[in-house]
Amino acid sequence: MTLPALDHDATARARDRQASLTKPRGSLGALEDVVATMAAIQGRVRPRSRPATALIAASDHAVTKHGVSAYPAEVTRAMIDNLARGGAAASVMCASLGVPLVVLDVGVAAPRVPPQRDGRRVIRDDVADVALGDLREARAVSPDDAQRVRRAAVDAVSAIDELAVLVLGEIGIGNTTAAAAVVSALLDIPAERTVGPGTGLDGEGIARKRAVVSDAVAALGGDRDPWSVLARVGGRDLLAMAAAAHAAMQRRAVVLADGYVVAASLLALSRVVPDLGARVIFGHCSAEPAHRLVLDALGARPLLDLGMRLGEASGALAALPLLDLACALHEGMATFAEAAVPDRE
Amino acid sequence: MTLPALDHDATARARDRQASLTKPRGSLGALEDVVATMAAIQGRVRPRSRPATALIAASDHAVTKHGVSAYPAEVTRAMIDNLARGGAAASVMCASLGVPLVVLDVGVAAPRVPPQRDGRRVIRDDVADVALGDLREARAVSPDDAQRVRRAAVDAVSAIDELAVLVLGEIGIGNTTAAAAVVSALLDIPAERTVGPGTGLDGEGIARKRAVVSDAVAALGGDRDPWSVLARVGGRDLLAMAAAAHAAMQRRAVVLADGYVVAASLLALSRVVPDLGARVIFGHCSAEPAHRLVLDALGARPLLDLGMRLGEASGALAALPLLDLACALHEGMATFAEAAVPDRE
Repeated sequence: MTLPALDHDATARARDRQASLTKPRGSLGALEDVVATMAAIQGRVRPRSRPATALIAASDHAVTKHGVSAYPAEVTRAMIDNLARGGAAASVMCASLGVPLVVLDVGVAAPRVPPQRDGRRVIRDDVADVALGDLREARAVSPDDAQRVRRAAVDAVSAIDELAVLVLGEIGIGNTTAAAAVVSALLDIPAERTVGPGTGLDGEGIARKRAVVSDAVAALGGDRDPWSVLARVGGRDLLAMAAAAHAAMQRRAVVLADGYVVAASLLALSRVVPDLGARVIFGHCSAEPAHRLVLDALGARPLLDLGMRLGEASGALAALPLLDLACALHEGMATFAEAAVPDRE
Repeated sequence: MTLPALDHDATARARDRQASLTKPRGSLGALEDVVATMAAIQGRVRPRSRPATALIAASDHAVTKHGVSAYPAEVTRAMIDNLARGGAAASVMCASLGVPLVVLDVGVAAPRVPPQRDGRRVIRDDVADVALGDLREARAVSPDDAQRVRRAAVDAVSAIDELAVLVLGEIGIGNTTAAAAVVSALLDIPAERTVGPGTGLDGEGIARKRAVVSDAVAALGGDRDPWSVLARVGGRDLLAMAAAAHAAMQRRAVVLADGYVVAASLLALSRVVPDLGARVIFGHCSAEPAHRLVLDALGARPLLDLGMRLGEASGALAALPLLDLACALHEGMATFAEAAVPDRE
């Protein structure tokens, strides 16, 4: 599964164009860097932010039985319905931004059958009906189920017609516990630093969550194969995101990543895609404290830092207009020559 | 010139609504704070980010004769033409965002007559033809000219039909020197901390610029009247922005502020509008190091920090989509009751 090489020539030519536009050199800051990154991924001197699609991986987590979340596990199911009907944060943002929303359900119990309309779709893979394991025992997803989840994610990305940017997010009560276990295992740091309040856990809850994560890493033993780590102490949503990101990279699409759980999934993927940091734009740094740790490990500089901690791709969607503006500026600004503006002395 | 009171009841009711929406409390971070701020300004539980207009104040600065800028002074004139024709960063961003662009020329020599189309207009006030003074002597703008500039700015804001958000920016080679002088005077800090590279000055240039700012503050003497400080060591663009912001506040419009020069102008205005920090949303923190100083003095938390340093309202325009999304989320998300989603235990 070799990925297409990054096109450094496209980046160099994009940088040349940036230097010719009517502005002080480098004065658009990160908006210029974003274009340079996108140029290499897409192999275009003038990269595109559209068409974009938001993909939200959804799964339950058996680990919720240990009291690691402020919300009951049924919220995941109810929120998929809310996402499909248009009332969830991601649905509103996608409608506002003109972005189709795909929810990929790979493990949610007893969902309602939500309406498919207004660019919002829920894809439910058969694997969603297979029982979940407990990450505390390092058995969250069996090897067979992991293969099925990965295939479902690749298929979901293949089914997207045109794709310049894949906005990647998740929903799944319990999945910040999974993210913490993956990060603790892969970065070899204790649960005290990888576990935060998630959707709003109190002190006792955080203590329980840390114990679960410590147990998970202990149960994992020496296994550091990234796909195996995602399966055993992560979950189906994390597996699906890593596979979807990889499939998007195959298509030379830009991956625009949301928060902590997405970052944990991509941290695992980076063990098989060493230049992952140059293939992903990190939309934001979330309020979950360990998110920064993972971003640092990936050498990533997120675009936004707004204290968001909602999931559902919301932080990445908030950053999409910056990609739109960056590409529009790069495409539409006049050069010094075209505008007859004197350049610096 | 008393301003309408901030509507704290609207904020409280907006916060109540936020708590009822299908997301963990506070999980939209700064996007929730933005709505709370806008609610108080507009007196609406569901505030609006549109219609928005971008206003760019433009002026030459006689201080450029001291070699304080990396670009020749004629760039200001050429860039107004570029703004009007659609090739400048702000023109491209305004087109992309569907925002009308008004350039208010209050002191630019010998402009071309640019086309007025596609929502872009250049307003040229008669005062633009009056000779400029040197801020190094604390005589940048005479008291009479300052009155005319302020009136021109108020008229420009009055001429905008509907206005929910005023995006405020500037263009004027030399105006980071003016900003530094205003900030040094009002915050009583030396030029070493208020002078940065501007559009790209080298070390010698920065030393010259610091000397000019020190001279300006010395020439100002003990005068700390904010309008007088803006006139004497600022410039017409800074005066126009303070007056335009005040006029927008009169109309209960949200002021969305761009970078360092805008912040310096608003710092002066804050001496007559003590709750200014609650009436302005600061779009970004620029790469100009002293911008952070001013933001801190105003108690402001900017939305973006992207290393931008272009001016032309570009950093504020980059933040406008965040206001759009914040308002859309607040308006469009379902409540826990509407969506039948279980709230936290």
